Amino acid sequence: MKASFNPSLYLVTDSTMVSITELPTIVEKCVLGGVTMVQLREKTASTRAFVSIAFQLKEILAKYHVPLIINDRIDVALAIDADGIHIGQDDMPYHIARRILGPDKIIGLSVESYKQVEEANLLDVDYIGISPVFNTPTKTDTKTTFGIEGVEKIVAMSKHRTVAIGGIHLDNARPIIKAGANGVAVVSALMKATDPKKEAQKFKEIL
Amino acid sequence: MKASFNPSLYLVTDSTMVSITELPTIVEKCVLGGVTMVQLREKTASTRAFVSIAFQLKEILAKYHVPLIINDRIDVALAIDADGIHIGQDDMPYHIARRILGPDKIIGLSVESYKQVEEANLLDVDYIGISPVFNTPTKTDTKTTFGIEGVEKIVAMSKHRTVAIGGIHLDNARPIIKAGANGVAVVSALMKATDPKKEAQKFKEIL
Repeated sequence: MKASFNPSLYLVTDSTMVSITELPTIVEKCVLGGVTMVQLREKTASTRAFVSIAFQLKEILAKYHVPLIINDRIDVALAIDADGIHIGQDDMPYHIARRILGPDKIIGLSVESYKQVEEANLLDVDYIGISPVFNTPTKTDTKTTFGIEGVEKIVAMSKHRTVAIGGIHLDNARPIIKAGANGVAVVSALMKATDPKKEAQKFKEIL
Repeated sequence: MKASFNPSLYLVTDSTMVSITELPTIVEKCVLGGVTMVQLREKTASTRAFVSIAFQLKEILAKYHVPLIINDRIDVALAIDADGIHIGQDDMPYHIARRILGPDKIIGLSVESYKQVEEANLLDVDYIGISPVFNTPTKTDTKTTFGIEGVEKIVAMSKHRTVAIGGIHLDNARPIIKAGANGVAVVSALMKATDPKKEAQKFKEIL
């Protein structure tokens, strides 16, 4: 059976911001502060290093019953029996991903246009990632930002749960939830925080 | 049941040498010239592009009953139901790869030291890749070359079939087979050939 999940405060890791060896500590602090879901995104490590860090995070997150989602790499997700994957439009096509992972894994899909929201409505994805809401330095390959109005429009259009991502920090998180999104995905605001636990707590208070 | 395979003339692709759109044509020409096995190695493309080219190659190779092996990426291998994977020492650990792929897929493992040959003897891999035999511009992360003497030594040590890789071209292929290796893996000598079919035929004559 598919695990239930709460995407309200969704941490997305970025090992270009911190060294991969620091990730377990930072992730655990974020969870202690209230992060409800974690996505491991790793674009440069070897498969072996990716699997190794994924195992470490899985062990930590299991203690807190926080789901671990792997970005893009279904092989890594299978290796560690992760809770699910998150795919973008350049990653594995959804139908193939679902066939490989089966019905019980969480699959999130990034949408970067309203047309892609409509296409996602035809799929049984578990949530869509509205990407990007705001301008962000961590993703340079996306073109237009949706803004709060875009989030409102997508929430109305989509039959799926929605998580907003892109340039989200303490000052702009609240309007996203007010616009109806089920969660905010946060990268640098948590990864780069001096005190990740306290920062996550502040997000919790706002949301 | 596992497909039988003949690794005697094993083409390893490299999309840094040719554009990904040219790959299907080059690979087919190589097969017409006598290539017996193909490994798709792709380190820069998106997962979607990787899956797409893998599907194209599978369709071509199926016509000739030539096995398609995917380098590193088990997700891509599963997506297209490839004949197997080839993993290096920094890729997925062998036991996990075998668990995910099951007993019927070919798994090849690169060895870069005599110690790794001994370790591979404890695993039910389908062949080992002796890497590198000679100096090569396509792999910069490997340290020492085995040379012909090293191939002889490994052939004697290994309980697995052996394929040599690294800097192999028409002038140095024959001694590798004489040393007892079951095959030569060729990258640039075929990928960069003006006439890949003719080049593959020349290899066939030598081997």
